Amino acid sequence: MDKIPRNERIATLMKLLSDSPGKIFILGSFTGMFGSAKSTISEDIDIVGNIFSKLDLGFIETIPGALGGIRFIPSVSKGRTADILGRLCGELAKKERLLPGGFIYMLDIIYNPEWINDIAYIFAAHFFPKTIDYVVTVETKGIPLAFATARYLSVPLIIVRRNSEAADGASVSINYVSGSSKKIQTMVLSLRSLRRNSRLLFIDDFMKGGGTAKGIIELAKEFECEVAGIGVLVETAEPSKKLVEDYFSLLLLERVDEEKKIIEIRPHPDMM
Amino acid sequence: MDKIPRNERIATLMKLLSDSPGKIFILGSFTGMFGSAKSTISEDIDIVGNIFSKLDLGFIETIPGALGGIRFIPSVSKGRTADILGRLCGELAKKERLLPGGFIYMLDIIYNPEWINDIAYIFAAHFFPKTIDYVVTVETKGIPLAFATARYLSVPLIIVRRNSEAADGASVSINYVSGSSKKIQTMVLSLRSLRRNSRLLFIDDFMKGGGTAKGIIELAKEFECEVAGIGVLVETAEPSKKLVEDYFSLLLLERVDEEKKIIEIRPHPDMM
Repeated sequence: MDKIPRNERIATLMKLLSDSPGKIFILGSFTGMFGSAKSTISEDIDIVGNIFSKLDLGFIETIPGALGGIRFIPSVSKGRTADILGRLCGELAKKERLLPGGFIYMLDIIYNPEWINDIAYIFAAHFFPKTIDYVVTVETKGIPLAFATARYLSVPLIIVRRNSEAADGASVSINYVSGSSKKIQTMVLSLRSLRRNSRLLFIDDFMKGGGTAKGIIELAKEFECEVAGIGVLVETAEPSKKLVEDYFSLLLLERVDEEKKIIEIRPHPDMM
Repeated sequence: MDKIPRNERIATLMKLLSDSPGKIFILGSFTGMFGSAKSTISEDIDIVGNIFSKLDLGFIETIPGALGGIRFIPSVSKGRTADILGRLCGELAKKERLLPGGFIYMLDIIYNPEWINDIAYIFAAHFFPKTIDYVVTVETKGIPLAFATARYLSVPLIIVRRNSEAADGASVSINYVSGSSKKIQTMVLSLRSLRRNSRLLFIDDFMKGGGTAKGIIELAKEFECEVAGIGVLVETAEPSKKLVEDYFSLLLLERVDEEKKIIEIRPHPDMM
């Protein structure tokens, strides 16, 4: 077998590890793959860990013991987070985004892979320690963000629907009251979607009253699952009292003045 | 400035290039970033190109001239494609996936980042030469696949809705006839979503009659845009005549026998 040069080993390790955050790799699996000694691979892994940290992507954790190995843990510095959220607020505060009714046009952001990957990485880094089994969202606008977060946590995505569909088999359906409009709404989830006793991370693009998040907590109970985290991109300052207590939001929408064409949005104080 | 070692330059280049397929990078931007001579960077890029090709991810294209530079083009070998589609068929043919009505449970596949990234990469590699401006899908089940494809093409995603929403501003709505059930359905797209004269790639998880794809072609006309490609994960063998002519499907669902619990699905002959 040809000797595989260090550059190539490093590049391959980076790709394997960063493609599957949280997945444990046994050192022995690399010695076979590269035909190199364990000590050489250990040096490679040190180099890769260094590069991850310089690129502000995360770090490598060593798991000792017989079943030990290494895994990549996503993380992101305060500085990079502040930079991403600052740029995002600058973009979202542009007055041409104002829509009738005081809404803000956000589709070009929340469907854009470049923005979404940056935002999802912040969520993944924040919620990684919570050992999440599934990311869950409600159709439609939060799906890209939830999917990208699931990818960075190496877990499956679950999409809760508004109506049941024959093509997805038997389902559980609940009614809940939306937090802001007080309307009764329906959530449907295919029975096969979730293993019982799983830990869920609910991700959404927007939170006003928190009714959807509360609905997800109710739905999770029907599946004997627990909502271990709630992450939203934008929360509105009003109502300040949401229907859920413990959630993580990146941006705070303080005020929208249709008349004067002003959007006041800033990174959530906890983020800075 | 500290000299940045080759390993680190290579890893950084790999990340930059593969995170933004199709994006042109000027060589001069790297000489500044790394503090290395142009000839050194050229050597680095040769090494990176080699690694991309060994990892079966794609290749680096050199664009000559004053505005020249390099860009990463995603590609995937016939062998890896066959392997992915073969494993996928093995998974989808399991008889426990059969649902009443002859439907096949697929949510655990089409919401799973690992499968979706592999499948989206095949689409991205296939459609890259068509110079796509946007990936478009119709809510809900194709969204993760469409988003991942958009990411690998470095273009925004557009999600066509079933109902309009005040929060997204003025919209264009069309009615179309579904290919299989002959029901009249509605598609809605926010007016701000698309630049005129854009080239769209329509991505969906499933095609039976092709009505949705035809609807997207109609909708695109209203925005003075062109559907430059259609990619679906699974097409049904019947009806063999679809409402659209030119589409690229990965898997062919030949037969579902509820009585005998048989699902016959295989990679599309064109793929092998």
